[in-house]
Amino acid sequence: MTDPVQLTADLIRCPSVTPEEGGALVRLEALLSDAGFDCTRVDRGGVSNLFARWGEKGHARSFGFNGHTDVVPVGDEAAWTMPPFGAAIRDGVMYGRGTTDMKSGVAAFAAAAVDFVRDTPPDGAVILTLTGDEEGDALHGTTALLDYMDGADERMSVCLVGEPTCPNTMGEMMKIGRRGSMTAWFTVTGVQGHSAYPHRAKNPLPAMARLMHDLASHELDQGSDHFDASTLAVVNIDTGNTATNVIPAQCSGTINIRFNDLQSGAELSTWLRAKAQSVADACDVEVAVRIKISGESFLTPPGPLSDLVGKAVEDETGVAPEMSTTGGTSDARFVKSHCPVVEFGLVGRTMHQVDECVEVAQIEQLKAIYTRILRDYFA
Amino acid sequence: MTDPVQLTADLIRCPSVTPEEGGALVRLEALLSDAGFDCTRVDRGGVSNLFARWGEKGHARSFGFNGHTDVVPVGDEAAWTMPPFGAAIRDGVMYGRGTTDMKSGVAAFAAAAVDFVRDTPPDGAVILTLTGDEEGDALHGTTALLDYMDGADERMSVCLVGEPTCPNTMGEMMKIGRRGSMTAWFTVTGVQGHSAYPHRAKNPLPAMARLMHDLASHELDQGSDHFDASTLAVVNIDTGNTATNVIPAQCSGTINIRFNDLQSGAELSTWLRAKAQSVADACDVEVAVRIKISGESFLTPPGPLSDLVGKAVEDETGVAPEMSTTGGTSDARFVKSHCPVVEFGLVGRTMHQVDECVEVAQIEQLKAIYTRILRDYFA
Repeated sequence: MTDPVQLTADLIRCPSVTPEEGGALVRLEALLSDAGFDCTRVDRGGVSNLFARWGEKGHARSFGFNGHTDVVPVGDEAAWTMPPFGAAIRDGVMYGRGTTDMKSGVAAFAAAAVDFVRDTPPDGAVILTLTGDEEGDALHGTTALLDYMDGADERMSVCLVGEPTCPNTMGEMMKIGRRGSMTAWFTVTGVQGHSAYPHRAKNPLPAMARLMHDLASHELDQGSDHFDASTLAVVNIDTGNTATNVIPAQCSGTINIRFNDLQSGAELSTWLRAKAQSVADACDVEVAVRIKISGESFLTPPGPLSDLVGKAVEDETGVAPEMSTTGGTSDARFVKSHCPVVEFGLVGRTMHQVDECVEVAQIEQLKAIYTRILRDYFA
Repeated sequence: MTDPVQLTADLIRCPSVTPEEGGALVRLEALLSDAGFDCTRVDRGGVSNLFARWGEKGHARSFGFNGHTDVVPVGDEAAWTMPPFGAAIRDGVMYGRGTTDMKSGVAAFAAAAVDFVRDTPPDGAVILTLTGDEEGDALHGTTALLDYMDGADERMSVCLVGEPTCPNTMGEMMKIGRRGSMTAWFTVTGVQGHSAYPHRAKNPLPAMARLMHDLASHELDQGSDHFDASTLAVVNIDTGNTATNVIPAQCSGTINIRFNDLQSGAELSTWLRAKAQSVADACDVEVAVRIKISGESFLTPPGPLSDLVGKAVEDETGVAPEMSTTGGTSDARFVKSHCPVVEFGLVGRTMHQVDECVEVAQIEQLKAIYTRILRDYFA
């Protein structure tokens, strides 16, 4: 039996802060190759990725897994009470960067898959798509793997993403979709002048205040069947004018929108540009808009895949997981164009924090859940 | 006859950028002492000032003049086409820092006063209060001179401030008052959080946008008999948050108000604090307010002094000057507590700019106007 706790510890000890491979994918490739997986390193744009398949290429029953081995930076190392790349275990808890997000998830699935194909070889294929670029720009991570698969006629029938999905208790939540995310940068340009003569200047700041007030007080929607209401957060307004007797020429503002399946990045962009233009017209200033859509919302409607995962989780933990679409983005936003995708992993409470940690028993439990998912899928 | 053009040139060549005396007050003290003025250097807080009186101390007819010899910095010296401390004359125009603001005004009055008391000694006193701290914080300039005069039982019956008051044409405008000026700094504090979960944070930015929008769209008044409408300019909003997935904890905003005699600094402060509190309550954030009142508005209602100055200007230039209260602040805001004060000087179009300059003929004309004011006052 492959020990998922030892494998997690091995991975933690690889300092794979994005974009460093750090030895993590090398360790996994060795394990999977020994177990009969066809492994291909898919490196692109300075980052490393690993594609691994056991079984027949193009089989109609190909169960896929997606995860990442890169981790966010340590932050203030002095604030850690345990070494961030040490994988030390104290009182049944393993500490280290990536223990929850998400080396334990990768280790649990890899261990489950290796044992499963050895003990009960299925009629089908098991595929792992492992990336070293999820926490960074994600330009050359899962996207590169999917591009590789397209070119090589490799295909997953369904895919499970192993991100931590449970807020507090093991088993309580799985993700069947994610909100979209976009950022808009506004630059308002007027005409500089003296504070004593505002009629001779065109002050960009009241226009910015009006635009941000309008945007922040607008209700985008009230949510949909599977999603919470879309949100808009003003995250920055900057001017940099220190002279109180000067009306500045320019200021900038930034908003971030998390949107559900009632919205689209394109429609929201149109709305933002119209709002900006209306304020520009009303205030006689210029408003430039730059927009980046990080990901559209997506949903795998409740059905066979979510039923399969939900039942396996409930059987192992006694908890029926909520089918949620909350939270930030994940690489499921890329996988959704390839095949149905859901996400399940362990408790993510300490992700990205100092003293990130995981209960050792939860790693064992996660391997058991993933094993049951594989067994039920191929039953 | 004392040449006001030569005296202006002498003063320009003294590099008296605040707080440097630069030799300017020394030059004036020599001139005035030779002409029989009692001179006292009133230095305080690292700046220099000069008090000079001809005639009897405490005389009921004491004509006062107020001006400054300090100048603003040169700025981009390479952008000047003439040396900023050279006082070069080309095509009848003298160039240099302080040619309009306001060494020519000081020179014109000093030259007029010296010739006037020598040629037609009046029954009364002529007083000059000259400061080296008008362009800076003005904490130890005219205020120091007035404090000295209080302690020494020195008194002006009326006072003329020689700041440039004409927007474009010599003689077109005098100042019988000035608006007040105040600055308010707002700091909005909420609770930092993740952009994906705005309900868990308290975003200070929509509150700041709302506050600034409210303030900027409020009409303070519609002006009064002698004043334009009060104005409120938003001059800064800063946050300094570069992470688009983070809702910041705090942001700051600054406004500047120029207010007329319908307002007071105290009442405006009360209004600003109430506005801030109402936004704090509505948005569930904290709003801290810091206020600095640079000067209250003041008015010397049209009467004997403004009639005297206006008539002298019209007699010399053929233009009846408008009695205005426009513009920024000047040291008249301090003098007004001592005696009736009006302001008249030359065209200020190039003040604080590169290639600041004055028509030489206007310096001669200004001396003639000041001479006529003295003659008419003591007639």
